[in-house]
Amino acid sequence: MHILITNDDGIYAPGIQALIEALKPIARITVAAPDRERSATGHAITMHSPIMAKPIIRYGQEVCAYAVGGTPADCIKLALDIFIKNDWPDLVVSGINNGPNLGTDVIYSGTVSGAIEASMMGVPAIAISMSSHDFTSFTEAASFAAQMVHQVLDFPKKPAPILNVNFPVCNPREIKGTKITKLGIRKYRNNFIHRKDPRGNGYYWMAGELEDLPQDPNTDIVAVHKNYISITPLHFDLTHYKAMDKIKKWENNFHKTD
Amino acid sequence: MHILITNDDGIYAPGIQALIEALKPIARITVAAPDRERSATGHAITMHSPIMAKPIIRYGQEVCAYAVGGTPADCIKLALDIFIKNDWPDLVVSGINNGPNLGTDVIYSGTVSGAIEASMMGVPAIAISMSSHDFTSFTEAASFAAQMVHQVLDFPKKPAPILNVNFPVCNPREIKGTKITKLGIRKYRNNFIHRKDPRGNGYYWMAGELEDLPQDPNTDIVAVHKNYISITPLHFDLTHYKAMDKIKKWENNFHKTD
Repeated sequence: MHILITNDDGIYAPGIQALIEALKPIARITVAAPDRERSATGHAITMHSPIMAKPIIRYGQEVCAYAVGGTPADCIKLALDIFIKNDWPDLVVSGINNGPNLGTDVIYSGTVSGAIEASMMGVPAIAISMSSHDFTSFTEAASFAAQMVHQVLDFPKKPAPILNVNFPVCNPREIKGTKITKLGIRKYRNNFIHRKDPRGNGYYWMAGELEDLPQDPNTDIVAVHKNYISITPLHFDLTHYKAMDKIKKWENNFHKTD
Repeated sequence: MHILITNDDGIYAPGIQALIEALKPIARITVAAPDRERSATGHAITMHSPIMAKPIIRYGQEVCAYAVGGTPADCIKLALDIFIKNDWPDLVVSGINNGPNLGTDVIYSGTVSGAIEASMMGVPAIAISMSSHDFTSFTEAASFAAQMVHQVLDFPKKPAPILNVNFPVCNPREIKGTKITKLGIRKYRNNFIHRKDPRGNGYYWMAGELEDLPQDPNTDIVAVHKNYISITPLHFDLTHYKAMDKIKKWENNFHKTD
């Protein structure tokens, strides 16, 4: 088995080391990850500037690792098109992210975009995140990712599945189990702090406090709050099919523009 | 009526000028757009560096316009949280993009992410794009956007609708009408060109030729190819609900990790 690892915390982040250790016993590993932190890059790709990329030796002789001057989506594209073009992986694992990727926030997530890009190219993918920034050990989550591998590979491959995993913030012994969830809703208030630069020009820092919203009990947000590991299956079809029927009548509503 | 305009081609791009001219007769206009081109930024947001923002006078006294050193999603967040906090718009229009935002490519689109961010914050949104980079006139598309405004505002607002419009590549007189579509599939081959920098280090430019794939006749790709204006309703819920049931059994499959 061959597994490709990426992340958005950068190629030297501890989440990658933990994944390599947990996955090496069951698979050959290739790493293609950003050369620096690229959090909150969403599904950005680098089209208008060159992407530097070089092999690094940090992870030993057995692991081919590439530091890429781009986003997680760039890393997956470059790996599948160039680095391992003739040796495609069975699975992509993106993470382990140092912080949650829960609810509507996944749309901003570089970690999740690495997994979505893999699926768009036909490779099953797991995105895995610690649901708090305060975690110091990624070992348990990495071992859970290794347990998931065979389940994911047994799943139908068209379209290639995407699983978004969030690990709860508790002592591993207090983890209650695993929940299959849907994405909840995350909203923030006081999103920006306004400051002036030394020349008096205004600028803004994105900040924001999470609002405490009522959540459906089947959401990822509730699951991790109750000390469950959350697994949410994702897709990348942004078509709103139900709305299509409702607006079908618009086809007759518009005047010719000439 | 109050309309907020954004784009990903930058605040001085001609698509914004055309939208202002077409929408000014029916609404007050605010513009919050990137200070330079930010194409293919996907749903990136700027969390780890400050965002410069300043009013510009290019669009006259009647139009408040803000040049933002961030992505289209940043522009929408800043506008709704800061610039027009107490005067929210009835609608966001993102574009007119100089180039297509069709099929699976919408996930990379800054133009579409501006519209999605608006919907996430509760404001209906239209993303509008010319389906070729070779267009010189945005007038017809802008006038179509103006025609759409009342249709969109009559639509149920929870969740706030997102409409992705692509204008066909033909003489406006040859436009056959409007089609409500779903997203097609866009794939590329030969995605990267490999070069060496003056010091012999490898780098890559994203390139890629569009593959000629079979397409469902109800897709946006087929509609614009047949000289129809394509309207695709979008959503931002990435949960793959059908897969949830299929993997529910996984809840019992994993060993406790301790």
